[in-house]
Amino acid sequence: MRVAVVGVTGAVGTEILRVLESRNFPVTDLVPLASPRSAGTTVSFNGKEFPVQVLSREAFDGVDVALFSAGATRSREFAPAAMAAGAKVIDNSSAFRMDAEIPLVVPEINGDLLANCGNVVVANPNCAAILLTMVLHPLQSVANIERVVVSTYQSTSGAGALAMEELLTQTRGFLEGNEPDPAVFEWPIAFNLFSHNASVEEDGYNGEENKVMEETQKILGRPALPISVTCVRVPVLRAHCEAVNVEFSREVTEEEVRAALDGKPGVRLQDDRENNHFPMPRSAAGGDDVWVGRIRRDKGHPRAIELFLSGDQLLKGAALNAVQIAEVMVNS
Amino acid sequence: MRVAVVGVTGAVGTEILRVLESRNFPVTDLVPLASPRSAGTTVSFNGKEFPVQVLSREAFDGVDVALFSAGATRSREFAPAAMAAGAKVIDNSSAFRMDAEIPLVVPEINGDLLANCGNVVVANPNCAAILLTMVLHPLQSVANIERVVVSTYQSTSGAGALAMEELLTQTRGFLEGNEPDPAVFEWPIAFNLFSHNASVEEDGYNGEENKVMEETQKILGRPALPISVTCVRVPVLRAHCEAVNVEFSREVTEEEVRAALDGKPGVRLQDDRENNHFPMPRSAAGGDDVWVGRIRRDKGHPRAIELFLSGDQLLKGAALNAVQIAEVMVNS
Repeated sequence: MRVAVVGVTGAVGTEILRVLESRNFPVTDLVPLASPRSAGTTVSFNGKEFPVQVLSREAFDGVDVALFSAGATRSREFAPAAMAAGAKVIDNSSAFRMDAEIPLVVPEINGDLLANCGNVVVANPNCAAILLTMVLHPLQSVANIERVVVSTYQSTSGAGALAMEELLTQTRGFLEGNEPDPAVFEWPIAFNLFSHNASVEEDGYNGEENKVMEETQKILGRPALPISVTCVRVPVLRAHCEAVNVEFSREVTEEEVRAALDGKPGVRLQDDRENNHFPMPRSAAGGDDVWVGRIRRDKGHPRAIELFLSGDQLLKGAALNAVQIAEVMVNS
Repeated sequence: MRVAVVGVTGAVGTEILRVLESRNFPVTDLVPLASPRSAGTTVSFNGKEFPVQVLSREAFDGVDVALFSAGATRSREFAPAAMAAGAKVIDNSSAFRMDAEIPLVVPEINGDLLANCGNVVVANPNCAAILLTMVLHPLQSVANIERVVVSTYQSTSGAGALAMEELLTQTRGFLEGNEPDPAVFEWPIAFNLFSHNASVEEDGYNGEENKVMEETQKILGRPALPISVTCVRVPVLRAHCEAVNVEFSREVTEEEVRAALDGKPGVRLQDDRENNHFPMPRSAAGGDDVWVGRIRRDKGHPRAIELFLSGDQLLKGAALNAVQIAEVMVNS
C-alpha cells in the first residue's frame, strides 16, 4: 500500500510515521511530503531512510492512503489532488471538519461513519475535542448530558514542533537569567501560561475553543449540546489536560460514571484518591490512552459530575486517531 | 509599633517584610520569628539586618501586631500567646478560618468586619479564594450569582519556598536529561501538572478545593452559594490563574460584567481580544492587582459568563492581603 504523509517533518507527521510503524500499518511504499523548506532532509521509517519530497499535486500519483498534517491551507489546496488520484484522504487540519458532508471521526465513537462515507475526505478532529469526546461518549450511556463546562491545560505540541522547542529554549534562557524572546507564541511560555494563542472571534471565544465546542457537538451527534470551553496554553510538552464539569438529566453516582468509563477502549481510569494519583501529562505522554479521574459529584449542582482527563496531544489527539481512521478505511 | 512576623523566612513571610516596607507600615520594632531551623539567620528590613528569633510564647511580649504565616499547627499553638500578650493577630493559615466567630477578611470586600471583631484572631483567606472573591464580589452588584464553577492553575509558591525551588531545580535537571526526584511534591512538577497536592477528602474534593469553596462562601456571606472548584498545580512560580464560570439569576451582558469590574480597587481589567492579551502569571506576578479578562457569554448557558483571572499568590493571595488587614486594624 502506497501511503503519503503530508507534513511529515512536523510534530504530528513525525508521530504518524512512528504510529504506522508500531501498528504495522501495511505500508509497502512511503511517500513523505513536506514544504520546500524540508527539501533535502530524510525521514526514517521501518529502518530505512526516505528523502522528503516537496508537496505537489503529482506527488499523489498511485497513492492509496494520504494522511495530511500540514495545516488547513495546504489541505484545501492539495487534498482534492489526492482524492483525484484515488487516495483515501485523512485530514488532520481544520479545513473540512465542519463541512456537513465530511465525517469527523473518532473511531471508538463514530467509526461506523466510515463504512458509507463515499468519496470524501475524512476529517481528524481537534486534539482537545478528541480527548474530551473519548470521555463524554461513554458517559452518554449513563444519562443524557445536558451541559458541559471545560477548562483545558494544553501543551505546546499542539502548536507544533517549533513551539515545543520554544518552551525548552526559553526555559533554559529563563534559568540563565535571560529575558524571554517569544517567536512562535505571542507571550512567554516558560514558567507562564496564557489564553490559547488562536485568534479571538466575534463571540469572545477563541478559534480553538470554538473548534472544541463545535467538533464535540458534531462527533457526539449532539449539534445543540450546551457546551462552553476555556482553552489555556501551559508550559508542558505534549499532553493536554481538561477539567470537565458534566451536567446530566438526572442525579448520577460516581460509581455509575466510573463503571461507564472503566475498560472502555482507549480510556484508562486513574482515580486513586488515597495516593492523590490522578491523570497528568507525564502519565499520558507517549501513550495511546486518554486517562480520566478526579470523578466526584459537584457539590454545587445535584446533577453534575466533575472529572479531569489527560491524553497525548500528538497521539490520540492527532497521529494515532488519524492512523486508526486509516485502519478502518483500508479494512472496510 | 512592635510587629512580629511568624514564619519570616518562608515564601510568604519574606513577602510580608517587603509589603510592610513598601506600604510604610508604621513598624518601629520588628520581631522576626521562625522555627529553630532558621536560628542564626538574619532578615533585612528597611535597610537593617535583624537576627531571626526562635518562635516561643515569650517572643510576643509587647508585640502590637503579629502576622502568622507558619502553618496551621504553629498558629494553633502560638496565636493564643500572641493574643494574650495584647497583639492584634492576623493568621495566614487555615487554622481558624472557618470558625464561626473568626472574621475571614478580604479588606476590599468585608473589611467592615474588622471594626467590631473584638478580641479574636483575624484570618487571612486561602490564596485562590482571595483572588476569586476579588472578582465575584463586584459581580454580585450585577445580578444574584446562582452558581460558580472554577478550574485553577496554581503556581508552586502556594506550597512554599522549597516548592518554588523544586520547580527550578527539577526543570534544570530535566533539561540535562535527569529523571525527576520529587521531594516537596508527590509528582514531578517540571513540564508537568497535577491535581493539587492537598489530600483528597471523603467527598472526592481535595482539601484545597474545599477551602476555596467554603471560604468563598464565607467571605461573600453566601454560605449556601453553589460552587465547585478543581484545583490543579502547574509549573509556574508565583501567580495563580482561575477559569471561572459564573451563572447569574438573569441574562447579563459582557458590558455589565466589565463595568462592574473596571476600576474596582485591587482589580485590573485586561480583556484585549484584538491582541489576544489577557491575564497571565507573568503579568500578575509581583503586582498587587487581580487581573481579569476573557469575559464572554457562555454559549452553553444563557445566564452564565466565562472569565479568567490571575493574581500573585504571595501578594494579594497572602502577604499583601494580610498587611492590608493589619492596616485597617491599626487605623480603626
